[in-house]
Amino acid sequence: MKVTIVGGSGYTGSELVRFLIEHKKVDDITATSRTHMGKKVSEVHQNLKGIYDEEFQEFKEDRVDSDVVFLAVPHGESMRVAPKLLSKGIKVVDLGADFRLKDAMLYESVYGLKHESPELLEKAVYGLPELNRKKIKTAKLVANPGCFVTAALLSLLPLGNLKNKIDAQKIVVDADTGTSGAGINPTEFTHHSEVDGNLKPYKVTGHRHQPEIEHIISGVIEGARISFTPTLAPITRGILSRTHYFGDLDEFNLSKHYEKFYQKEPFVRMCDIPYVKNVAHTNYCDMGVHYDRERNHGLTISAIDNLVKGASGQAVQNMNIMCGFREEYGLKNIPTHP
Amino acid sequence: MKVTIVGGSGYTGSELVRFLIEHKKVDDITATSRTHMGKKVSEVHQNLKGIYDEEFQEFKEDRVDSDVVFLAVPHGESMRVAPKLLSKGIKVVDLGADFRLKDAMLYESVYGLKHESPELLEKAVYGLPELNRKKIKTAKLVANPGCFVTAALLSLLPLGNLKNKIDAQKIVVDADTGTSGAGINPTEFTHHSEVDGNLKPYKVTGHRHQPEIEHIISGVIEGARISFTPTLAPITRGILSRTHYFGDLDEFNLSKHYEKFYQKEPFVRMCDIPYVKNVAHTNYCDMGVHYDRERNHGLTISAIDNLVKGASGQAVQNMNIMCGFREEYGLKNIPTHP
Amino acid sequence: MKVTIVGGSGYTGSELVRFLIEHKKVDDITATSRTHMGKKVSEVHQNLKGIYDEEFQEFKEDRVDSDVVFLAVPHGESMRVAPKLLSKGIKVVDLGADFRLKDAMLYESVYGLKHESPELLEKAVYGLPELNRKKIKTAKLVANPGCFVTAALLSLLPLGNLKNKIDAQKIVVDADTGTSGAGINPTEFTHHSEVDGNLKPYKVTGHRHQPEIEHIISGVIEGARISFTPTLAPITRGILSRTHYFGDLDEFNLSKHYEKFYQKEPFVRMCDIPYVKNVAHTNYCDMGVHYDRERNHGLTISAIDNLVKGASGQAVQNMNIMCGFREEYGLKNIPTHP
Amino acid sequence: MKVTIVGGSGYTGSELVRFLIEHKKVDDITATSRTHMGKKVSEVHQNLKGIYDEEFQEFKEDRVDSDVVFLAVPHGESMRVAPKLLSKGIKVVDLGADFRLKDAMLYESVYGLKHESPELLEKAVYGLPELNRKKIKTAKLVANPGCFVTAALLSLLPLGNLKNKIDAQKIVVDADTGTSGAGINPTEFTHHSEVDGNLKPYKVTGHRHQPEIEHIISGVIEGARISFTPTLAPITRGILSRTHYFGDLDEFNLSKHYEKFYQKEPFVRMCDIPYVKNVAHTNYCDMGVHYDRERNHGLTISAIDNLVKGASGQAVQNMNIMCGFREEYGLKNIPTHP
Repeated sequence: MKVTIVGGSGYTGSELVRFLIEHKKVDDITATSRTHMGKKVSEVHQNLKGIYDEEFQEFKEDRVDSDVVFLAVPHGESMRVAPKLLSKGIKVVDLGADFRLKDAMLYESVYGLKHESPELLEKAVYGLPELNRKKIKTAKLVANPGCFVTAALLSLLPLGNLKNKIDAQKIVVDADTGTSGAGINPTEFTHHSEVDGNLKPYKVTGHRHQPEIEHIISGVIEGARISFTPTLAPITRGILSRTHYFGDLDEFNLSKHYEKFYQKEPFVRMCDIPYVKNVAHTNYCDMGVHYDRERNHGLTISAIDNLVKGASGQAVQNMNIMCGFREEYGLKNIPTHP
Repeated sequence: MKVTIVGGSGYTGSELVRFLIEHKKVDDITATSRTHMGKKVSEVHQNLKGIYDEEFQEFKEDRVDSDVVFLAVPHGESMRVAPKLLSKGIKVVDLGADFRLKDAMLYESVYGLKHESPELLEKAVYGLPELNRKKIKTAKLVANPGCFVTAALLSLLPLGNLKNKIDAQKIVVDADTGTSGAGINPTEFTHHSEVDGNLKPYKVTGHRHQPEIEHIISGVIEGARISFTPTLAPITRGILSRTHYFGDLDEFNLSKHYEKFYQKEPFVRMCDIPYVKNVAHTNYCDMGVHYDRERNHGLTISAIDNLVKGASGQAVQNMNIMCGFREEYGLKNIPTHP
Repeated sequence: MKVTIVGGSGYTGSELVRFLIEHKKVDDITATSRTHMGKKVSEVHQNLKGIYDEEFQEFKEDRVDSDVVFLAVPHGESMRVAPKLLSKGIKVVDLGADFRLKDAMLYESVYGLKHESPELLEKAVYGLPELNRKKIKTAKLVANPGCFVTAALLSLLPLGNLKNKIDAQKIVVDADTGTSGAGINPTEFTHHSEVDGNLKPYKVTGHRHQPEIEHIISGVIEGARISFTPTLAPITRGILSRTHYFGDLDEFNLSKHYEKFYQKEPFVRMCDIPYVKNVAHTNYCDMGVHYDRERNHGLTISAIDNLVKGASGQAVQNMNIMCGFREEYGLKNIPTHP
Repeated sequence: MKVTIVGGSGYTGSELVRFLIEHKKVDDITATSRTHMGKKVSEVHQNLKGIYDEEFQEFKEDRVDSDVVFLAVPHGESMRVAPKLLSKGIKVVDLGADFRLKDAMLYESVYGLKHESPELLEKAVYGLPELNRKKIKTAKLVANPGCFVTAALLSLLPLGNLKNKIDAQKIVVDADTGTSGAGINPTEFTHHSEVDGNLKPYKVTGHRHQPEIEHIISGVIEGARISFTPTLAPITRGILSRTHYFGDLDEFNLSKHYEKFYQKEPFVRMCDIPYVKNVAHTNYCDMGVHYDRERNHGLTISAIDNLVKGASGQAVQNMNIMCGFREEYGLKNIPTHP
């Protein structure tokens, strides 16, 4: 199978290459880059030296002859490119935000851009396998979830079953992220001297992942309102998401409920307390759930690698589902200790 | 003035020495240590080489002739030692937990120890200057607050004024801390290889600071229930505390309210978004408050240095108040950038 | 094939499990541990949850029925255990120091222990494939090199060819290491608060890897004297080794010389400037060589992961050679960016 | 006294403000910035909020009426500005490179710029107090040393006395630095995701501080040739410099020799093994010296904070000397543990 990665010079591109090299059904990988066209991929991603020394290609949407295309480009670009690719029968996994929200108006209000392919919003499938596996199987266009959103949704999905016992208006998601989530381009915010030894909340009431979480989870927990606060932590990889909710949940055994909910999932592991390092560089989501009956307070903690389950790994998982492969293909690398 | 630091070999001891050296009213500092008795303080705290080269002394409660004693010892020890010191007219600042909770039963249930000086619980003043300045002025025994508790209480205090508009049952405090909060003794939990690149929630429903926060804040916000979740972050210094609450607060200008509440405080600085690095090594608490009217969600973020405003700095601030000194004495060191 | 890991609860044990799970010729892995016997491996190494949930076994040298045994135990233990295992026809890879030095007296002077199996010293093969591949093929007992030693030797090996142009008496190896090299047991030296933001040289003239480097390299560069200085850096994984040497090397093209020397090696990658992160978690050694003709100064920089090429990865590479497998088996995981 | 900081928006500017606020002889500080003119200093350096809330001024060399001016500007600018300031009788401390090398040709070859004020090179005094205290006393223009250079020179100065026993041709300086040395402007090289968990050698044979070290030390150790290798470490503050040299030094007691050499220096502290964290945020240089008589190998390790003793702290120390103040003024802040 042939795959193309559009926008291969960023961190998500680098990770896609890493997983696809290991993928037994993929035998041809093309990575494109506007900035680095003609340069070896392993010059930009020096980790790949001797492993993947092909050159970055120019992306010409007319000439793509891959079976699957991953779009790892800034929002606003995918919506221009996707229609063409789809019309050629190519399966598309978009790692950006263009097709995540079903509502073109909401997209416009969040991203400040008019949506150019609103007709695709209905056809696009939101690529969280734990929520939409069936639909992904037959999808031609998958919108890969945001990193924070993946962590938050996985924490929230099992709550949909709890007979409306949750106070849906008062859900708090407090999430710490590593700096790789901000991408490869240097900024003052992610400058080492500013991050090291620091903890920096940001966009505390206006992060773009907040509407995405609410948009998707409202299909599961009616009327859910999510108060979302992201904080930048001095790590490279990982999101630790703490989801707080209130409700009289005494009758449920939350731990068992979650265990059961996720028992067949290949990449969700229930545990007592998840640590980001136990999932770093891999597609796992580790999750723990706790309930304080005195305060009617539920807490679900999720840990993912923002670039893997939060981006490129999940994208490959989606490709596997779309193509009828085993979901683990390309994603078998094992977390390390320490 | 003469001061003695009991338990000077830990991190809070080291910080006390640092502040007291700079203190213009203190001309004699004695540091005691059971383990390091006879060794130079600057051998254990090598930062102090050439600055404070005195030896650690043995602590003999009968022979202390200081005006003020700081107790930087494990909980359970202060309650044995304090009565004797007080009986000699010595002012005591206890950095441990023994006198923080007014209720001996609560103390027993939280710390698993019978309180040996319950008669002092009433006399001890909880040493949060922003709450109890007046009482501290005349106190003989001050119970210095816990580090997480300081950050949480400072975030919560101004909410007491808001005409009961807060849903007191559903307050979430999500706090990240640096490793120095766990002290100088090495453990697997704070082993570098386990902490680096990691985020580790811990004691998610049973941290000892949770009852302390509730105990104190219930005097300000009636019936307050605090759901508290601590996480270990890969930094040495600092606590970032995010306090979430719900209520229709539209009528209030939260920012102005906080500004006004803290306008005379020498160590609380209101800002948009606080970062721990802007307060590291100093006694400042930086604080930002945000309100999302769509979700009736209030968020107050506080940043402190757990060893300074969260321990030794606040202890010196308390001493200054007890002795009628300017509160800033010894605490004037300026945060750095970067 | 069956393998046993003796001492599986440490970091090298964890890494051995990781590689052997991926190894297509290994279908039975036993991990032993004195401390954690009966506990699940994935309780101690939580990264392995759902991946390797077997229990730690007791190690009984009489009952081992594996084809290969990895000894990941403190020095002094392997020399007691190895003879028995070898007598049963089991291949042994020792990750400790017991069989690295051919000279029992030297061993005694460095490790302060009398060698209990001196007769094996001659038979043991020093397991640096780039030096001893042929001998390893037929070895029954392989002494896996120390982590610093691996990095230093790989930098030095190609210099053996340079017609004695190097001043062999004045070779400086300055190496920074991550904390995982010190193992899983917490110490003050590797306590996070002490390591974070710090750089700590240690054992600056007496590190045990110094005689090992000299002992081995003297077979390649006659009379070589190595001045070795290790420094602890605030990272978990990786060694960066800078080897300095002097000599009139104008006639050689050092870069090409190294390229040629290592061209067939599966795990040595020549580059301009190696970074530890480009090899982290993998068995690669990245290496760069520079020559300043004005000062007759040569500089070879090597980067390895101390737990992989510096320990467990190299051990698996040695097993592969001993068993006639492809050297890459089990070691194909790809470095990441970032 | 009035002082002006030209280029106050960088890290060295921030540190100058911090020290000068504490300085009892300075009562008027002006900070200028081209980029941030009109903005509050404490908006850019948020650590200073409530402490120094003045605005950045425009720098107009004609209107400066300060007694001392610190130039914290890119190289090439000071040589244009300094003559004017000096002509007005203002004392100048230049934190850049323009006046460090006495030789205009060397400056040109290193910095790629023609020197515009070569006549000042003779008058400028190289501002390393431990070398040039006397000259600094009467200097009008002081060239503050580079950060790596400070660490290296302090290690090397005492060797000048050793009767030429050192092999001057074969001196190796291997130094690790924190990221703040690269300044406040974000780059790919200092992007957190690229630095965290990494060790990155750079400019391994062509760093601009190499000729500066050689240029200065050759006045002390005749014919000295310095092979200098810098490495970026994942810390914000600090340089750890390891200086290696060879020679038969058996007759000397190196430790005592160094102790004696530096005994009157207020900011050099001899110790066994220096750590950067013991000097971070302060003007101290901690230093340890070791000799391996078997290899005739001497090793001097220095630790400084690159922004303090390596830049702004030393600049204030120089100002103090130029003005006849006590050298410690403004520089009394105490290192912390941890």
